[in-house]
Amino acid sequence: MAKAKTATVSLEPLAIGIDIGGTGTKFGIVDRNGNVLFSSEISTRGHAQVESFIDELHKNLLALIDKSGGPGRIRGIGVGAPNGNFYSGTVEYAPNLPWKGIIPLAKLIENKFHLPTILTNDANAAAIGEMMYGAAKGMKDFIMITLGTGVGSGIVSNGQLILGNDGFAGELGHTIIIPDGRKHEGTLKFGSLESYASATGVAITAQEMLKNSKEESLLRKIPKEQVDSKKVYEAAIQGDKLAKDVFDFTGKILGLALANFVMFSSPEAIVLFGGLTKSGDLILKPTREHMEANLIQVFQNKVKILVSHLKESDAAILGASALVWEVKG
Amino acid sequence: MAKAKTATVSLEPLAIGIDIGGTGTKFGIVDRNGNVLFSSEISTRGHAQVESFIDELHKNLLALIDKSGGPGRIRGIGVGAPNGNFYSGTVEYAPNLPWKGIIPLAKLIENKFHLPTILTNDANAAAIGEMMYGAAKGMKDFIMITLGTGVGSGIVSNGQLILGNDGFAGELGHTIIIPDGRKHEGTLKFGSLESYASATGVAITAQEMLKNSKEESLLRKIPKEQVDSKKVYEAAIQGDKLAKDVFDFTGKILGLALANFVMFSSPEAIVLFGGLTKSGDLILKPTREHMEANLIQVFQNKVKILVSHLKESDAAILGASALVWEVKG
Repeated sequence: MAKAKTATVSLEPLAIGIDIGGTGTKFGIVDRNGNVLFSSEISTRGHAQVESFIDELHKNLLALIDKSGGPGRIRGIGVGAPNGNFYSGTVEYAPNLPWKGIIPLAKLIENKFHLPTILTNDANAAAIGEMMYGAAKGMKDFIMITLGTGVGSGIVSNGQLILGNDGFAGELGHTIIIPDGRKHEGTLKFGSLESYASATGVAITAQEMLKNSKEESLLRKIPKEQVDSKKVYEAAIQGDKLAKDVFDFTGKILGLALANFVMFSSPEAIVLFGGLTKSGDLILKPTREHMEANLIQVFQNKVKILVSHLKESDAAILGASALVWEVKG
Repeated sequence: MAKAKTATVSLEPLAIGIDIGGTGTKFGIVDRNGNVLFSSEISTRGHAQVESFIDELHKNLLALIDKSGGPGRIRGIGVGAPNGNFYSGTVEYAPNLPWKGIIPLAKLIENKFHLPTILTNDANAAAIGEMMYGAAKGMKDFIMITLGTGVGSGIVSNGQLILGNDGFAGELGHTIIIPDGRKHEGTLKFGSLESYASATGVAITAQEMLKNSKEESLLRKIPKEQVDSKKVYEAAIQGDKLAKDVFDFTGKILGLALANFVMFSSPEAIVLFGGLTKSGDLILKPTREHMEANLIQVFQNKVKILVSHLKESDAAILGASALVWEVKG
């Protein structure tokens, strides 16, 4: 008995992080210092029923839990999911997930694993991850913007996630930056940030510019439907003027949006994450310039634009696991 | 001695509220239930030096303090001022005040009155007033928008004022709603909410519409430079089409802005205050319609747009005094 007790005490508690995406779900076991000890991935899209999804998730996670020293070491489960609601633990009408309507995901997972489970939207989870382990370490006021296929956001003010009255706060990708602008095929709204500053938006901008200008471009050698944000980046670093114009245009809109966000919550920094940030100064330089140009004096030259330095493959799991320490710890 | 002690115990503590505006400064003695017991006003503009302003304020307030039972009853002083900073107690580079640079206003007042003094910007004070006594009573998540000569804002999330990293959060009047839109004569930025949805903005819109359209209008009988938001309102309630178009245009821009604010902090309600709200449904109806039209589904039909029902002459003093209870109480 004494020996067993000693062994238990010497083992640090661990957390499970689960990041549910439209295509795949990543999960892992994470220690309090942000080390991902074990991780794996299953398909999300392959499960038409949420119950079969949770069964497979459970089976796969049990193996990792065993490797980590058993369920006694696990403090809880943090889940990041699109349209995830912190208050209710539900995922509501997520357009990119196979399960429709309102899914009581936290409860389903808690019942299966018999571990306390906290759920929030994926960008909020990413923000908590950045605050605990990443670029926003030690900050009490920052905004996390994920620039991927879509544009997500998590807002931290006075050390707390802004969740709002209903738990759905922080949908900055859907704020309207260009009134009567480009139509978003998912929301059917016009001129949202996401319709321009996502990977999808960059591809559309490139295709529009190729159509509306006579400018020579490396991108003209590629079939139009294959012009994506990666191809635009590759052309731009070879000095392609049109491709660079695509980033300037995107940065102009992103910078204007960031200025508006700064005038809302006056953060210490804005942390950018996701595929588009790999384009570095091609996108960051015009973004910074246009953010500053649209800020009133009191906010100028004080808000940092940072790029997340978390390892991309771990970041989603880390962020989700951080919920366990941040909220229950 | 015993008698004096009894008298003291029976007296409720009071707070002083001071609202500093560009033209005048209102102040009063307020009880915890939001009753303004005594109030008065002095000129702000008449004092080139902040010291002489504080001397006059002190002299005038002493009379009110005496009437209220003496300084022993006063718990503290709350001050709302343009560009007021909660953290530092300073007023910084306020374009509409006679005192330039950074003014340590809370400290100056505290030294003069020997009472704890809390300062924040005027719209934040108004938000706290609404939360304690007004339309936002009992709410933990709301946004206060003041539609006066300018457009101010105070944001409450999770029961707390959003102050930001530097104490200057909540400058929603300066967010850019129409990129490359109307120039703001104060900030020199283009297309901010304040350049359209303030009384000043409404007057400019009316003057522009009169110039650019051939539409008959009652407003054409008034010299152009006298067309202000009040005249536009008077014409609109008489059925004047152009005047109603001015409100529709203003509501379209305000509604779009409110949608963006909702997608940031997901409030239970937006509380509107100030001169423009007197136009009632002329401005509220298009504002509501365009807010809803720009919201993604998850936010639709759940955010109330409320008009402050605090007596306008008291509201500023109430809001400032509420800081004393909210923060120190």
